[in-house]
Amino acid sequence: MEASSKEKALHQTVKVDLGNRSYPIYIGSGLLDQPELLQKHVHGKRVLVVTNSTVAPLYLDKVVDALTRGNPNVTVDSVILPDGEKYKNMETLMKVFDKAIESRLDRRCTFVALGGGVIGDMCGFAAASFLRGVNFIQIPTTVMAQVDSSVGGKTGINHPLGKNLIGAFYQPQCVLIDTDTLNTLPDRELASGLAEVIKYGLIRDAVFFEWQEKNMTALIARDPSAMAYAIKRSCENKAEVVSLDEKESGLRATLNLGHTFGHAIETGFGYGVWLHGEAVAAGTVMAVDMSYRLGWIDDQLVKRIHNILQQAKLPTAPPDTMTVEMFKSVMAVDKKVADGLLRLILLKGPLGNCVFTGDYDRKALDDTLRAFCKS
Amino acid sequence: MEASSKEKALHQTVKVDLGNRSYPIYIGSGLLDQPELLQKHVHGKRVLVVTNSTVAPLYLDKVVDALTRGNPNVTVDSVILPDGEKYKNMETLMKVFDKAIESRLDRRCTFVALGGGVIGDMCGFAAASFLRGVNFIQIPTTVMAQVDSSVGGKTGINHPLGKNLIGAFYQPQCVLIDTDTLNTLPDRELASGLAEVIKYGLIRDAVFFEWQEKNMTALIARDPSAMAYAIKRSCENKAEVVSLDEKESGLRATLNLGHTFGHAIETGFGYGVWLHGEAVAAGTVMAVDMSYRLGWIDDQLVKRIHNILQQAKLPTAPPDTMTVEMFKSVMAVDKKVADGLLRLILLKGPLGNCVFTGDYDRKALDDTLRAFCKS
Repeated sequence: MEASSKEKALHQTVKVDLGNRSYPIYIGSGLLDQPELLQKHVHGKRVLVVTNSTVAPLYLDKVVDALTRGNPNVTVDSVILPDGEKYKNMETLMKVFDKAIESRLDRRCTFVALGGGVIGDMCGFAAASFLRGVNFIQIPTTVMAQVDSSVGGKTGINHPLGKNLIGAFYQPQCVLIDTDTLNTLPDRELASGLAEVIKYGLIRDAVFFEWQEKNMTALIARDPSAMAYAIKRSCENKAEVVSLDEKESGLRATLNLGHTFGHAIETGFGYGVWLHGEAVAAGTVMAVDMSYRLGWIDDQLVKRIHNILQQAKLPTAPPDTMTVEMFKSVMAVDKKVADGLLRLILLKGPLGNCVFTGDYDRKALDDTLRAFCKS
Repeated sequence: MEASSKEKALHQTVKVDLGNRSYPIYIGSGLLDQPELLQKHVHGKRVLVVTNSTVAPLYLDKVVDALTRGNPNVTVDSVILPDGEKYKNMETLMKVFDKAIESRLDRRCTFVALGGGVIGDMCGFAAASFLRGVNFIQIPTTVMAQVDSSVGGKTGINHPLGKNLIGAFYQPQCVLIDTDTLNTLPDRELASGLAEVIKYGLIRDAVFFEWQEKNMTALIARDPSAMAYAIKRSCENKAEVVSLDEKESGLRATLNLGHTFGHAIETGFGYGVWLHGEAVAAGTVMAVDMSYRLGWIDDQLVKRIHNILQQAKLPTAPPDTMTVEMFKSVMAVDKKVADGLLRLILLKGPLGNCVFTGDYDRKALDDTLRAFCKS
């Protein structure tokens, strides 16, 4: 009994409330050493772990052990994909299907995504599509994936003309966040994830943003308790939004603050040259600039946002090579275009408030693009 | 008012009851000349018609007219795929995404599947995955698609190792069956579709089977009223089953009578050499043979099934080149395998009764395979 209460003490649970597709997010240190947490969400006797060449040497054995310890009926196959956003495409996705079919997995199998956002998105889409849908579990190993992409069921791959244009809404059985996996994360990846943490503060949680302003140094220094709090509060924000608007009919789109500009940077600049969060940070600065031009926020807020992004060691402008035309061509195929009109997430009012709208002066958008591009 | 009641007289509606995803199946002659029927299910201002090189010259203009007549705000793009089961793969699917993205379609667009089962399955999966899901409409132009594949939301593509291994459950906004499109259907395609009509009788509708025994000559001769009745009764059967078990946890699997053997023929023999319904017919004979070996049905029923398939000009045995090993290797990756055990749909009891089970004597399966294969 004592063991059980000890284990309970080791993790916190955030619930994503989606009726009969609800699921828990477990957050804590050493969760991969608690096999029962993972095993109770495995359906059937066959598991396919989808991971990449960076994460596999670090955590694959540990995850296989967590899946099989005391559980001899389960067999685990794995597929190791090349690492990076530029491989988030149909060709790489087919490798997951090939492995699943060669391994003769059936509908009762479980796919496990072990890695960052790219692995989670691809494994999730593979799980959504293999035999028209099998169970899956997210084990995110980056801040980006832990605070954002592993939660909420958005899955998919990129098309040469745009990010995440092919995919599915497909929810996992659980998300298991072992914060110890961050110990091996490069500094740049850490900062990239913080861009999404900052986002939650800006769009809906002023108190969280103010906490971040005080604790950014601790986060950058990987202080475990600060990091655990930031992850938990981010997951709570994400879970609330997803519960209210799973399929992104409105509210959920606000999670894309900075992402429309950011996607243009990722697509135009080449997938993976900048990390997702780096592009989102620069994109956030552009959305904030546009909000300010529209007269929707004051200059104090603009300054605070610049400051916190700089503290987090994130870029505050797009790469020099980006042109107005590159932004426009990618933004034209953005998923938030509706009947030809590009809707954007912009800040409006005091800290913690935003709007998702196509009702803005086009000149402000043009001015922002020109201000951040040399041509 | 009179016009409206005339129009009503021209079609019948079968409803697929799936809560907030329910949709109508319209069945009748001349429905493509009733634009309002189609237009009321189009969302947004952009439509992508997905069709093939056989159907496009026959019906694409007609469908574009039905979509746009009196509706100038709607613009229609189209993508014409090569015709045939062998093109039901990821490479062809990508052509749909390419076209949708090049045309800058957004989330409010509607995909329209115009063609047979292959087009419906691919267009449906593309609609399920493009921007994580857009609306779609089925306009089936073959008996096969009208009585079976266009109804119920199963979408997907083949993998070199097996049929329909990659896909989604994704429901259309409506299914529009203009029975006039059958006038251009080759005889062999007509017969292929009848294999699925016969299936409904065998698994759950003895009265319908008996009607077919009396009317098979009329169906083969394309008698319009016999054909309309067969389509409607088939859709009613399919709609009932899908409403009770959308995601195929049990009951829905019974619609796959003959399909496990049939898929092996299609995969082993090469996609598209035999039509789907031809493979299903031979597969049905094999499932019936196995049911008889198990002592689950009497020899009178076996004879009636042979007779009706012969009347429908369908094969009653697999191709000579199929071997026991070819059947076994494809059946091992069938979607109905669960934890290593292949579940089959077999007839049991009087006409109109079947079971979906993995609980059968393996010897009966081996004996059936050996009886139908030379090696």
